[in-house]
Amino acid sequence: MKLCQILLVCLVYSSALSDVPYKELYFEQTVDHFNPLSYGEKKFKQRYLLQDQWFDVVDRGPILFYTGNELPITTFWNNTGFMFDIAPQFGALVVFAEHRFYGKSLPFGDDSFKGNNIGLLTIEQALADYSLLINSIKQRYNAGKSAVITFGGSYGGMLSAYMRFKYPNLVDGAIAASAPMYLLSNVIDPSQFFVRVTADFKQSNTNCSANIRKAFNIMDGMAKSGDTGLNMLSEKFMLCSKLNETGYNHMVRWITNAFVSLAMFNYPYPTNFLSGLPAFPVNKSCGFMVNTDDLLKGLAQITAMFYNGTNGKLPCFDIWEEYVECADPSGCGLGPDSIAWDIQACSEIRMLFTTDGVQDMFLPIDYTAKMRNDYCKSKYGLVPRDKWASLNLWGFDVSPGSNILFSNGFKDPWAFAGVLHDLGPNLTSIIIHNGAHQLDLRGHNVNDPPDVIKARNLEISTIRQWINAVFPIKLR
Amino acid sequence: MKLCQILLVCLVYSSALSDVPYKELYFEQTVDHFNPLSYGEKKFKQRYLLQDQWFDVVDRGPILFYTGNELPITTFWNNTGFMFDIAPQFGALVVFAEHRFYGKSLPFGDDSFKGNNIGLLTIEQALADYSLLINSIKQRYNAGKSAVITFGGSYGGMLSAYMRFKYPNLVDGAIAASAPMYLLSNVIDPSQFFVRVTADFKQSNTNCSANIRKAFNIMDGMAKSGDTGLNMLSEKFMLCSKLNETGYNHMVRWITNAFVSLAMFNYPYPTNFLSGLPAFPVNKSCGFMVNTDDLLKGLAQITAMFYNGTNGKLPCFDIWEEYVECADPSGCGLGPDSIAWDIQACSEIRMLFTTDGVQDMFLPIDYTAKMRNDYCKSKYGLVPRDKWASLNLWGFDVSPGSNILFSNGFKDPWAFAGVLHDLGPNLTSIIIHNGAHQLDLRGHNVNDPPDVIKARNLEISTIRQWINAVFPIKLR
Repeated sequence: MKLCQILLVCLVYSSALSDVPYKELYFEQTVDHFNPLSYGEKKFKQRYLLQDQWFDVVDRGPILFYTGNELPITTFWNNTGFMFDIAPQFGALVVFAEHRFYGKSLPFGDDSFKGNNIGLLTIEQALADYSLLINSIKQRYNAGKSAVITFGGSYGGMLSAYMRFKYPNLVDGAIAASAPMYLLSNVIDPSQFFVRVTADFKQSNTNCSANIRKAFNIMDGMAKSGDTGLNMLSEKFMLCSKLNETGYNHMVRWITNAFVSLAMFNYPYPTNFLSGLPAFPVNKSCGFMVNTDDLLKGLAQITAMFYNGTNGKLPCFDIWEEYVECADPSGCGLGPDSIAWDIQACSEIRMLFTTDGVQDMFLPIDYTAKMRNDYCKSKYGLVPRDKWASLNLWGFDVSPGSNILFSNGFKDPWAFAGVLHDLGPNLTSIIIHNGAHQLDLRGHNVNDPPDVIKARNLEISTIRQWINAVFPIKLR
Repeated sequence: MKLCQILLVCLVYSSALSDVPYKELYFEQTVDHFNPLSYGEKKFKQRYLLQDQWFDVVDRGPILFYTGNELPITTFWNNTGFMFDIAPQFGALVVFAEHRFYGKSLPFGDDSFKGNNIGLLTIEQALADYSLLINSIKQRYNAGKSAVITFGGSYGGMLSAYMRFKYPNLVDGAIAASAPMYLLSNVIDPSQFFVRVTADFKQSNTNCSANIRKAFNIMDGMAKSGDTGLNMLSEKFMLCSKLNETGYNHMVRWITNAFVSLAMFNYPYPTNFLSGLPAFPVNKSCGFMVNTDDLLKGLAQITAMFYNGTNGKLPCFDIWEEYVECADPSGCGLGPDSIAWDIQACSEIRMLFTTDGVQDMFLPIDYTAKMRNDYCKSKYGLVPRDKWASLNLWGFDVSPGSNILFSNGFKDPWAFAGVLHDLGPNLTSIIIHNGAHQLDLRGHNVNDPPDVIKARNLEISTIRQWINAVFPIKLR
């Protein structure tokens, strides 16, 4: 078993850090699409990655276009092997476009997050970027009649669907993997996000979520007993600095954040998406929580597994360095990309996830619209525009769309806000019962469960239909 | 015959200045939908007119929503009687929304056209305004499940279609009357606009367009003969000031503008849209041009008929007052609304209409993209964004749309850029062979030609289908 795991690690790291080379290119992108005067014709360099080795321009191969989301685009290149797996059979051009304000695509360079510049970080601007980039690539490759299929996972899946919503003149079909479409509506119960995280641990082992809840409560009792308790916790969790009360509250979120990622990236083989993780990290976590007398130690081990995955074998943990609180209770990541996501959580994407310790296994943390609004206003001067986002991006009703395939891993906590039912013949939902977050977008792997293989096959046949409707695909 | 015409005048003026009363209401509209920081949450008062006397809220009557275009919304209220004619049978709520920067809907009051404020005058902002307004009206009338059908003529027809393109979550069907959709593309030949104007006069009488061309050439020869010629022209055309060379060039455009309106509003009964006009003003114009020895006098009579229609019996004409040159060679109208349209012609709507005196009957006037761009840059600091508008508003390919009915009067010069063929089962084109500009949107009239009656009947049955698909219509 150990040997097999080691072997899997090798297999996966070579595929995770994708061995498909790319051209790193930059597009002269308009800074402001919606106001012709504010920044005039000012441009910035938008990064995109491109691979044309399979592209069959003669037979009008399609363009497979990844709508980049809230990380540097290289991360998605390294974790979306499905597109490389299918590109040869379609004779496709593969493009991964970086989202403005992430990675190297900074509209104002080092000043991008200063002052009013962040007002240009909106979904609408990002979609407009992609529309101009698609058009430019079509022109450069003389591919005006090629079909364009967008791909994306998570927020990128929302963007992929939105491209088909708003630019069906440019996009012939969209794969929206693990896209929490209904975040932009009021038809979901935001408390369900952490309930879903909890369910993953409960499903691994009935005692697991119960014991994690117990561990959280033990920890909380200890913290509230005063300095001695806080000191013991600092030691138990191998923190670099001793905890005070504020630090403790932050530590709760730091731990909770680890659980979110373990559930999202609960893949059947080791991966390296946001963090280096073993195969089935939820099972591995539950291994620390059952058949043990020291539940607190288990909780610390789980947390350490996650944060060590990111940073190697750390001598101690710096909770302020490793987790930054933001407007998204599921976490915003670290560095400039986390600021960008925080801004998006403060403008159009509504994530008011709460925990109550009853439905879910976490310590109760309240989070109201008012708390978010106060935070956003004071930090960025932003007033969230939930209604606008809902109306503009069809939050309440995505059914007028067409040629969109919504796939959701049922074990992915984000599935609570996903499209889980077919909404029409050209608006299909796929449930991957054993799937975590956007597993179907990853490259094939010997450990793939059968339902993800089935999902990918349905995706391939659907994509084939979409392309054929534009131009008959050459058999290869 | 004379008596009958007089009677018609009475009939039409009472219906043209619509006798349907309205509530004049104002909506707190977001100044900038696309940048949450530039103007923050600043609002302005957007005017809309509303009539709920027919609204059947119990049986979920639909909302018939006019997407206002480049004039005060009252003008459209007074010239879109079709909506009032059909509202009772549908139990509909009727709303006419004013376009930002026109009429009383000025985002910055008297400062609206100053500095960078005009950067907020875009099609995208206008559509966003309508989306929020529709949502608000639905909430206020508890009409969340009512179907919404948009209506519009000319640029308003484009907006009506765009609402269905971009907001099918809010709009269930769209009537786009005389909408020159392909202006936002490069698939049309812009010289055809004035060719179409010419054709209307030729169709009225074969000699008519030929004689108008002759008259223009006589006039041009006279103007180029020097001061004596210019003085004679000043007298012939009853100008308030004597012409110089610059004045003459402006006069050519002033006359040409009259012909555009006569062709557009060549209705079978007297009307008062932009100008008070008799029934069949093209026929009436041609009456001045055939069986006469003095072609120049005929040209002056036609021009006078148009400008007198607007201003009553004028003692003389002020060409600078009555016609303002702008980025749209077909004319921008007068006053602040004309500035707003000029700005739109300088940003997203491309009208590079030329005349050559060969295909058309006018004096040759060149108009290149460069001339437009230089004008727009120097006057407003605007660089036209043709490509962006094309991509964002599907200029090249409107076929992904659905539930849109494009109607075009074949005698309307704007039809050269209209959708003249069905593009799918839910994307229908109606040609009204004897129709001028958006005749079908006008209220019924005893002088309506049979094909406009047929067109309206098809529109009604199509609207019925769209509404029925949302909620079964109660039989009334």
